[in-house]
Amino acid sequence: MNDFMYHNPTTIEFGRAKENSIGQYIKEANIESVLLVYGTGSIKKNGLYERVIASLKSNGISYEELDEVVSNPLLSRVNDGIKIVKDKNIQAVLGVGGGSVADSAKAIAAGAKYDGDVWDFFINKAQISEALPVFTVMTLAATASEMNGNSVIINDETSQKYSISSVLVNPVVSVVNPELMATVSKEYLAYSAVDIIAHSIEVYFTASLHPNFNSRIVESIIKTVIETTEVLIENPDDYDARAEFAWVAIQALNGLTPAGTEGGNFPNHMIEHSLSAIYNVAHGAGLSVVIPAWMKWYENQNPEQFKRFAKEIFSEEESSKGIEKLEEWFAKIGAPTTLEAAGIPRSGIQALAQNANALASVWGIGDIYSSDTIAEILEKA
Amino acid sequence: MNDFMYHNPTTIEFGRAKENSIGQYIKEANIESVLLVYGTGSIKKNGLYERVIASLKSNGISYEELDEVVSNPLLSRVNDGIKIVKDKNIQAVLGVGGGSVADSAKAIAAGAKYDGDVWDFFINKAQISEALPVFTVMTLAATASEMNGNSVIINDETSQKYSISSVLVNPVVSVVNPELMATVSKEYLAYSAVDIIAHSIEVYFTASLHPNFNSRIVESIIKTVIETTEVLIENPDDYDARAEFAWVAIQALNGLTPAGTEGGNFPNHMIEHSLSAIYNVAHGAGLSVVIPAWMKWYENQNPEQFKRFAKEIFSEEESSKGIEKLEEWFAKIGAPTTLEAAGIPRSGIQALAQNANALASVWGIGDIYSSDTIAEILEKA
Repeated sequence: MNDFMYHNPTTIEFGRAKENSIGQYIKEANIESVLLVYGTGSIKKNGLYERVIASLKSNGISYEELDEVVSNPLLSRVNDGIKIVKDKNIQAVLGVGGGSVADSAKAIAAGAKYDGDVWDFFINKAQISEALPVFTVMTLAATASEMNGNSVIINDETSQKYSISSVLVNPVVSVVNPELMATVSKEYLAYSAVDIIAHSIEVYFTASLHPNFNSRIVESIIKTVIETTEVLIENPDDYDARAEFAWVAIQALNGLTPAGTEGGNFPNHMIEHSLSAIYNVAHGAGLSVVIPAWMKWYENQNPEQFKRFAKEIFSEEESSKGIEKLEEWFAKIGAPTTLEAAGIPRSGIQALAQNANALASVWGIGDIYSSDTIAEILEKA
Repeated sequence: MNDFMYHNPTTIEFGRAKENSIGQYIKEANIESVLLVYGTGSIKKNGLYERVIASLKSNGISYEELDEVVSNPLLSRVNDGIKIVKDKNIQAVLGVGGGSVADSAKAIAAGAKYDGDVWDFFINKAQISEALPVFTVMTLAATASEMNGNSVIINDETSQKYSISSVLVNPVVSVVNPELMATVSKEYLAYSAVDIIAHSIEVYFTASLHPNFNSRIVESIIKTVIETTEVLIENPDDYDARAEFAWVAIQALNGLTPAGTEGGNFPNHMIEHSLSAIYNVAHGAGLSVVIPAWMKWYENQNPEQFKRFAKEIFSEEESSKGIEKLEEWFAKIGAPTTLEAAGIPRSGIQALAQNANALASVWGIGDIYSSDTIAEILEKA
């Protein structure tokens, strides 16, 4: 087992109606003002916006607003938020929405305490040393942004989809009420399932050292995602399945699964980021295109773990059958498994490969993932 | 899934030689003085004491000492520690040892900020509202005390083995270096394995609502404990097995396994506490006596989960076979499975049952576990 440090200070308030206490959680942290960050309006249609505002008001917390945060969230909007926070001397950031909103809230929180350009953190030009406290009320389960220090943002000037990771932007409190997630479309449910599986398998397959316990946790997550997704496709109102789905989404990327592993990396995310940066496809849809292609390309580099995956997840003896079954399952739940299905022309492969290779270099795996290699992988999609 | 709050702020510093940085971790928390709590001397024989002191000194941290903390730690010694901390105005408590030392450190930390008798917290006469920061360097993996807010103490005047649970006494930082655990005797390795399994199965069997994901995590922990214990019996110096054992010990009682479950309780611990309070048997040895007896008594109250246990852990179809195999495994690793083997006379059953029933009442399960019922269970041991 590799040495590691594990620290996840986020409080998860999980369950029905907990969003009505968000003002209280913020007040308990001695905070009197927040920037309320949200998306393109669904929280105004379903009443969540009013409930959050009511909770803030009844706890004496003042607020400014930043709306119009889009999926694949943009740096320009993050900078808008940083400006408001600095101008109005706001004490904390509250994201109400999905992963894009939470990620934007974190980037704003980090940028608010930095004199330079917040993008410096994303390109490793500067390290986060201070941040405003972050709170979230989640309406989508997928990214685990509610219980980690990650934020993925697209620089709309350079088409780079890059990320930061710091415990300083871990939410102080995240509200996870599965009922708020019940209106997600079947399409986005499928993309979310793919995203959770992607978070689970990246280190599982790529680590040079991966203890059995870690493998068992990953397999527990994947089995549960498959099981609950199938229930939710049939019955979107099944609370228990929705709740279990939300909780394993968190476990897949809150630091538990890689603890003690060695040498793992995130090639599927790395390649996918170029798809959503250039073609604005949903992250999960990009991943369901990349994953089977990458697995076919990578299979022989870790044959034992691929065999284990096939056996544990799909009760198959051959590793290739495990890949095949996963690809079939993606298709079955409505996630694209080819570039064509995701609306990406094959003529775009070279540009995607170059964009992804630039990120590979930032993540320190540029040697393994040259543009040619990434193009070779994408050809399989 | 039941509503829940999950918050575990402890930082785990896991790996080789991390104890040499304990002074740095304490300094980073802006603390300048600690009460160093330890046991009956083994840390002085193996050099750990000197390394911890050196780390404290090189980081400018002053210290007082409280030694002679025994297994099944005593309230009287906790009160000695509280007195030192109050008299010398010490800022934090550092436990270096196993679960008893960590538990004593927590009780001292809570008592130091309370004007009344610290035992008030254990009998629910008062609630912990403030505590000194706690740090630990662990030399034994079993209790998960390094990553939870629990403390179990014996009142040496009343022979009550009672507990507290508060996130306020969660360690700020715990050092878990598996190398420090390599000298544990085979006997205590077995007791530790039993303790971890006990932590895992209590809620697993007793919850009225136990999601599949929670069951999978518990089964992952138990499989890993069995696997690594068998490796360590053959080769105590296997670092990876030792490390995995230490990490799953933590996962078994850090709040993860019960999150979202409903109605679970800890009957095996409740009954065992009377064994170690009255006969001073090792906690794990008491548990290996109680568990098979309790399982046989309880089996019909949750037949599906017992069947699942037999299948997942021992590949057996019948639930009774699962109990039998676990009992055999306890015996195989050298843990007692009868009262006789633990040196407890059958004539003591009535007194044990009354002592345990008193604790059952404090834990709110006195109705289910009357003295007669507990005696009936112990008769099976």
